[in-house]
Amino acid sequence: MTPAPAAQADTGLLSPVRAGTPVEAAVGDVAWVQGMLDAEAALVRAQASLGTVPAAGARVITAAARAEHFDVRALAVEARETANPVVGLVRALTRLVAAEDRQAAEYVHRGSTSQDIFDTGAMLVSARALRLIRADLARAAEALGSLARRHRGTVMAGRTLALQAVPTTFGLKAAGWRQLLLDAGTRLTRVLDGGLFVSLGGAAGTLAGYLEYARVDSGPDALPPPEYAGRLLDAFAAETGLARPALPWHSLRTPLADLAAALAFTAGALGKLAVDVQTLARTEIGEVAEPAGEGRGASSAMPHKRNPVLATLIRSAALQVPVVSAGLTQCLVAEDERSGGAWHAEWQLLREALRLTGGAAYTAVELAEGLTVHADRMAANLRLTGSQVVSERISARLSPRLGKETARSLLAQASARAAGTGVPLAQVLAELPLVTEVFSREQLDALCDPAHYTGAAAELVDRALA
Amino acid sequence: MTPAPAAQADTGLLSPVRAGTPVEAAVGDVAWVQGMLDAEAALVRAQASLGTVPAAGARVITAAARAEHFDVRALAVEARETANPVVGLVRALTRLVAAEDRQAAEYVHRGSTSQDIFDTGAMLVSARALRLIRADLARAAEALGSLARRHRGTVMAGRTLALQAVPTTFGLKAAGWRQLLLDAGTRLTRVLDGGLFVSLGGAAGTLAGYLEYARVDSGPDALPPPEYAGRLLDAFAAETGLARPALPWHSLRTPLADLAAALAFTAGALGKLAVDVQTLARTEIGEVAEPAGEGRGASSAMPHKRNPVLATLIRSAALQVPVVSAGLTQCLVAEDERSGGAWHAEWQLLREALRLTGGAAYTAVELAEGLTVHADRMAANLRLTGSQVVSERISARLSPRLGKETARSLLAQASARAAGTGVPLAQVLAELPLVTEVFSREQLDALCDPAHYTGAAAELVDRALA
Amino acid sequence: MTPAPAAQADTGLLSPVRAGTPVEAAVGDVAWVQGMLDAEAALVRAQASLGTVPAAGARVITAAARAEHFDVRALAVEARETANPVVGLVRALTRLVAAEDRQAAEYVHRGSTSQDIFDTGAMLVSARALRLIRADLARAAEALGSLARRHRGTVMAGRTLALQAVPTTFGLKAAGWRQLLLDAGTRLTRVLDGGLFVSLGGAAGTLAGYLEYARVDSGPDALPPPEYAGRLLDAFAAETGLARPALPWHSLRTPLADLAAALAFTAGALGKLAVDVQTLARTEIGEVAEPAGEGRGASSAMPHKRNPVLATLIRSAALQVPVVSAGLTQCLVAEDERSGGAWHAEWQLLREALRLTGGAAYTAVELAEGLTVHADRMAANLRLTGSQVVSERISARLSPRLGKETARSLLAQASARAAGTGVPLAQVLAELPLVTEVFSREQLDALCDPAHYTGAAAELVDRALA
Amino acid sequence: MTPAPAAQADTGLLSPVRAGTPVEAAVGDVAWVQGMLDAEAALVRAQASLGTVPAAGARVITAAARAEHFDVRALAVEARETANPVVGLVRALTRLVAAEDRQAAEYVHRGSTSQDIFDTGAMLVSARALRLIRADLARAAEALGSLARRHRGTVMAGRTLALQAVPTTFGLKAAGWRQLLLDAGTRLTRVLDGGLFVSLGGAAGTLAGYLEYARVDSGPDALPPPEYAGRLLDAFAAETGLARPALPWHSLRTPLADLAAALAFTAGALGKLAVDVQTLARTEIGEVAEPAGEGRGASSAMPHKRNPVLATLIRSAALQVPVVSAGLTQCLVAEDERSGGAWHAEWQLLREALRLTGGAAYTAVELAEGLTVHADRMAANLRLTGSQVVSERISARLSPRLGKETARSLLAQASARAAGTGVPLAQVLAELPLVTEVFSREQLDALCDPAHYTGAAAELVDRALA
Repeated sequence: MTPAPAAQADTGLLSPVRAGTPVEAAVGDVAWVQGMLDAEAALVRAQASLGTVPAAGARVITAAARAEHFDVRALAVEARETANPVVGLVRALTRLVAAEDRQAAEYVHRGSTSQDIFDTGAMLVSARALRLIRADLARAAEALGSLARRHRGTVMAGRTLALQAVPTTFGLKAAGWRQLLLDAGTRLTRVLDGGLFVSLGGAAGTLAGYLEYARVDSGPDALPPPEYAGRLLDAFAAETGLARPALPWHSLRTPLADLAAALAFTAGALGKLAVDVQTLARTEIGEVAEPAGEGRGASSAMPHKRNPVLATLIRSAALQVPVVSAGLTQCLVAEDERSGGAWHAEWQLLREALRLTGGAAYTAVELAEGLTVHADRMAANLRLTGSQVVSERISARLSPRLGKETARSLLAQASARAAGTGVPLAQVLAELPLVTEVFSREQLDALCDPAHYTGAAAELVDRALA
Repeated sequence: MTPAPAAQADTGLLSPVRAGTPVEAAVGDVAWVQGMLDAEAALVRAQASLGTVPAAGARVITAAARAEHFDVRALAVEARETANPVVGLVRALTRLVAAEDRQAAEYVHRGSTSQDIFDTGAMLVSARALRLIRADLARAAEALGSLARRHRGTVMAGRTLALQAVPTTFGLKAAGWRQLLLDAGTRLTRVLDGGLFVSLGGAAGTLAGYLEYARVDSGPDALPPPEYAGRLLDAFAAETGLARPALPWHSLRTPLADLAAALAFTAGALGKLAVDVQTLARTEIGEVAEPAGEGRGASSAMPHKRNPVLATLIRSAALQVPVVSAGLTQCLVAEDERSGGAWHAEWQLLREALRLTGGAAYTAVELAEGLTVHADRMAANLRLTGSQVVSERISARLSPRLGKETARSLLAQASARAAGTGVPLAQVLAELPLVTEVFSREQLDALCDPAHYTGAAAELVDRALA
Repeated sequence: MTPAPAAQADTGLLSPVRAGTPVEAAVGDVAWVQGMLDAEAALVRAQASLGTVPAAGARVITAAARAEHFDVRALAVEARETANPVVGLVRALTRLVAAEDRQAAEYVHRGSTSQDIFDTGAMLVSARALRLIRADLARAAEALGSLARRHRGTVMAGRTLALQAVPTTFGLKAAGWRQLLLDAGTRLTRVLDGGLFVSLGGAAGTLAGYLEYARVDSGPDALPPPEYAGRLLDAFAAETGLARPALPWHSLRTPLADLAAALAFTAGALGKLAVDVQTLARTEIGEVAEPAGEGRGASSAMPHKRNPVLATLIRSAALQVPVVSAGLTQCLVAEDERSGGAWHAEWQLLREALRLTGGAAYTAVELAEGLTVHADRMAANLRLTGSQVVSERISARLSPRLGKETARSLLAQASARAAGTGVPLAQVLAELPLVTEVFSREQLDALCDPAHYTGAAAELVDRALA
Repeated sequence: MTPAPAAQADTGLLSPVRAGTPVEAAVGDVAWVQGMLDAEAALVRAQASLGTVPAAGARVITAAARAEHFDVRALAVEARETANPVVGLVRALTRLVAAEDRQAAEYVHRGSTSQDIFDTGAMLVSARALRLIRADLARAAEALGSLARRHRGTVMAGRTLALQAVPTTFGLKAAGWRQLLLDAGTRLTRVLDGGLFVSLGGAAGTLAGYLEYARVDSGPDALPPPEYAGRLLDAFAAETGLARPALPWHSLRTPLADLAAALAFTAGALGKLAVDVQTLARTEIGEVAEPAGEGRGASSAMPHKRNPVLATLIRSAALQVPVVSAGLTQCLVAEDERSGGAWHAEWQLLREALRLTGGAAYTAVELAEGLTVHADRMAANLRLTGSQVVSERISARLSPRLGKETARSLLAQASARAAGTGVPLAQVLAELPLVTEVFSREQLDALCDPAHYTGAAAELVDRALA
């Protein structure tokens, strides 16, 4: 048994979609503290690279900037005093560095402000989480691509407004799921490629503190302030691997809104897959089944059940992330050079969006790679309505002779009769002179075969996978 | 230093509004496990009280049902297998009981289903958290009541659409804040008084499992099933202190929607207080200040700042809870006898709504009890516009002579002149024959005194506090 | 053909759930203007009842206050100038009254402020809409009660996480839907009974303007201001039929938050009904069907389809109202004596929540009253799994002999074999010595009959309907 | 007076931010009907271009497809029968065409499905609205760019957590607003450039209906189906100017989620501008004023007020769009080949997001082009704290001598004394030996001048505008 968590800790009990997944660890409190420490260390290295801070000091600070040296819970509680955890973190880091090298301690957080460190740390954490999510999306998409290829010709009922509509193929369905995941991946990549910025503005976005300390710290051959500012930004971006923003963005929250949008999209895309799997796995439909596994899907009451738990977990995330993301997006409306509240509201929402989406993506890999497809049930279900699913087709074929409206109306009546009596549609039609004038019974039977009415489904799959 | 949390744990670092508050501990993973264990113990005691389970077994189970005996993180991770933490908890509890008393282990979770235990546990946790929140609301309301009484006659600018409008009193403002908190308390009490139900339905809400085991467990003088069902519900309600629902509510999520509404209301009410404090605390307004304290409100960059951190924390919660609650409310739309996803999405949202709101209420106590009021700044700010804030009054007084429209238009022009030139409104008016025909300069000065134009503010305060 | 709407008008094209319903008309622009005019008329009558305004003036104003006299679109466009439609409405009303009686025009909007009129009007409109919605909920609940009574014993599969779990009855399901609608009705009634306030505060909530004009208008025997204020509030409440608030509530938005919560609850409750109907109406399940009607449910492509359009419409509302309501709830966080934006954001959100919920309730009446239940399909579907739905029961019956865990595990394996081979569970079990030691084949067959495993379903229905 | 709207119509009364703006007309019911008619006409022209429909028929249909020929309200009400307005629209269009040319009527909506027409129409409407919004963003950004350039060196207080922090410039503030609008424009452009797709899938996304009719309609030299499908998609995209999707997207709602994200971003970006203007326009701050105009900003009660109504309107939109967009994003989770509800929930939400955002952008042009800047008030406000806003700077300058912590602590104490006594910080410091050892009084006065502590503000502006 691992050590008992403190009473108040949230270790994932209420969020199984992410409990124990890599993304959960990547955005936990320890990881977040590490992100902020990475920001402090990168900042002082950047300053050292411009000569305003001694290289030795930067090395000592970098060495001290390891989350395991800090009491994360204490930082959390102290954060109530200042409304953010950076003030306490800087104090603790300064103490730690001072114990090693009194002079180096002077250079901790030099010229900086809480928001620069917090936001840069948050971007580092987000980048790490996004890469995990993107990799899982790619794996899931690949598995869905294989399913699409394998079931390119597997005919099943297309369903609209809960009813069988016309035939489609499972290949096309899987290709659609894959397409959504690819779309999600594109949106995550767009954020990763230049959308996550270092934050470097100082107290109110003018970099005045950085420049003032640079002047204090520089010898006679100091860089002129504007040049120093530009080079510090470049160096900080280089040290962190994050992008350089057009302007300090303390209350210009573009990266947060972009993260919110990309994560909500991803969770929603995964949710589409999940609800389709749930529908197809219903006892009465039975066209797919989730991957089985020892204990997987067990019920506490019913011995016979193998619940589709992966789809359930994914859907639980898809129901949460859009509203969580709306909370993030609202924080664009941030007053002044730093909002008293809108900024602070972002933090937990961002983490929640990251770990829910990440947990869903992780879960989707297992779902997509292990999904069982029951082509026989698909075929059987298609036969349930006695060919009514091809009523559109027959209507089209009769229209040159009868006119579109008459043909449509004839098919509506014939379908209603078929539904009411259980007689297959082909047989109902075979008794109508208007129909038998046009088609022989053989032709009618061929037309009524759902397997021959899948349009361009196969070619659409080929094209999507190409 | 306390033991380092596991990498993935969420110990409050990103949510200072609740870090270290009592409500945070009341809804943590350990507390939630305890809630579920309390539900298991209450169930078996209820069954024992009806004679279908031996009393000794109920005692052993109750004794074992202590959260400290369980590996909470392991339960969280195992929950991925079954999409809920109850299956693993029952397994662990059964093992624990069996080690003590093999026979008693047979009676763990007897006839039950995961959702009965989870939901009953969630209601117990919610009830505990709501009581904490309600007590804090009451304390904060009392402090605001004192402020309202003390400042019954403290005149300040009423502000609408960001501009000074007409005078009001700080007493009326504080009474308004208090009223909102009382309204919130009423709504929490409504939920606490009969709105939190035991869950007792068995696998699909028919109680069939409970009845089947009762039949198995009863001797020849078993109660008839309907009577047994009714008495089991009563006994379970009595053991837990929760209410008895009209029907098993597995997918009838009334209590969750009510919790969501009451918590969103409370957080919003607290948010109103917070944004008003922020506005009044602005450097240029300076009419109130947050309670000071060593280190409180310190900035990592600016030595002179004492940030209004309490209002900031409260507002951070008020920005999050409405969207979090919307997520909860949506889960009313739950298909079947148990939704695969809508149920699971509720859990973390509920906890988040509880701890954010609870943290905000806790913070509001300190804010309300320590708020400093600067009546001098209020008076000085009222003088800023040279009596334009009473233009409505002068307009009213002139209307019998000039007609409402003409009076209004005259005041609009005079105000514009006053604003443009900096000349006090009384003086501008004193130069207009239409005005001097009606009022002497002394009358005009008296009319223009903002302190005499507070309407029924004092009586409204008296009435609200009565 | 009715006259073409102006290009920009929203006449319901994108919201069929409410197009043409009574609630849509009750909250349209014309109705809203009427609500505000009713507020102006009630105010002046209240003032006349206290003798500060001549009765004749109040009569002329009341007579003029008919929406048909106003150019609603012009008011809408003019509202951009002042950020609310009241300023223009007052101007137009004053003109109209002046044309009739110059003196009466002086008494229009006397001492008042835009927000008093707008909010009182909004409460009147809301009350009217809520009564429509409540009546429809009651009708739908009654129809569902009849269904529950009629199908008290109609056995069907209970479904959890998309799979058949254990048997239940359609009566219990319908009773659950009804219960949610009753819960919604209770919440609407709570708002209607004292939760919708008149707004009477004047420019900043002190009633100063009303008092100032009362002083101007009163003869020597004027009431003392505090008494006048109290009596004016009472008279205004009496004239409008709305409740009297504890305090002027310009930025204390309790009624709006309560409306948001009650409407989101109602829409969600209706959404639960809708998704269940959709599921049960699926081609492969076919246990219920929506009421048929000429043209109802027709598809533009597929002649055979009768789409479950009523459930579709209701669900479309249930997906929108929770987020719309979250927008409303957020507006609790309103700064100052009147927010520049939070107040204005409420208006359209409130209307949208009212008409979506009202449209859904109206639609639910037709759905509930016309729902067709296919008991035969329910029975057939229950047979699909060859009695696996009673595995819980057999497990319970075997547990005294085998112990709970062994029994459970035996049933899990037997169910897996039944599912894998298609052999009915009873037969699989009949081949196991551990089982046949306990049960004869006849006993086993009886135990495996789903119709005999519905627990207390019938009694729960009786109790809920009692 | 224009003709009275029907009782139920929504003509913008409750949404002044968009009432009377071009975007409102571009997304009204008439415009939406026109969008769907454009889709029908483009489809038949595309079919004609491939030779399966006679060119004359396409011409007649195109000519008939004018919204003014249709009773929009009747279509709205009829849509309740089928849950979408396309079925009725096709019926009416067919009648209209048939009256002209019986044969052409056969080709209306040939092979199509409601969703193809509705979604293509919605994309056309969205594209038109987005272009309007983008143009307004560009105009507003240009005006803000001019402000930034003009006020490159206008010093003002930077404010964080509601308090003055350190100096900044109005130029930097305006450049930040502009940057957010540019970011919004980029996101809208990304959607416009390839993100809005034609919908062409037929009943369940296989194009089977289109292919079936093509086969019926083609002579012996018909194109092979896959090639026909590809060329039809290309032709339809060319006729509409929309993009060609990777797959039919009936329940793959990428374009909707992208629209939701881009619109929420834009509204949020505009909201940031609005809340900053509101803050700066506060009576006590007075650093900016909205453009004046006859009647603009008038209050119904207070003659002196010129309310900042433009910022109010914009903020009212910014508070609504994020939740509205969350509703849209959720609709990604759409089951089957067409959801019964998730699709239908999108429509009004999309329109609302478009017109609120568009109204806000339109309003922002007027705000940005007419904003008055009071540099004198900015300077005066900066003097309010007697140089405490430069405490960070003095602290930096003293740190080489005293060490960072001691310097910081000294400044914190000196600032507290300055704040408590009203003595300027420079004077407080001038009495401290630790300070006077380092700086002469002249140096101290120079250091304490806020105008000299704006860091790289000017260069940041230059760079952002470059």
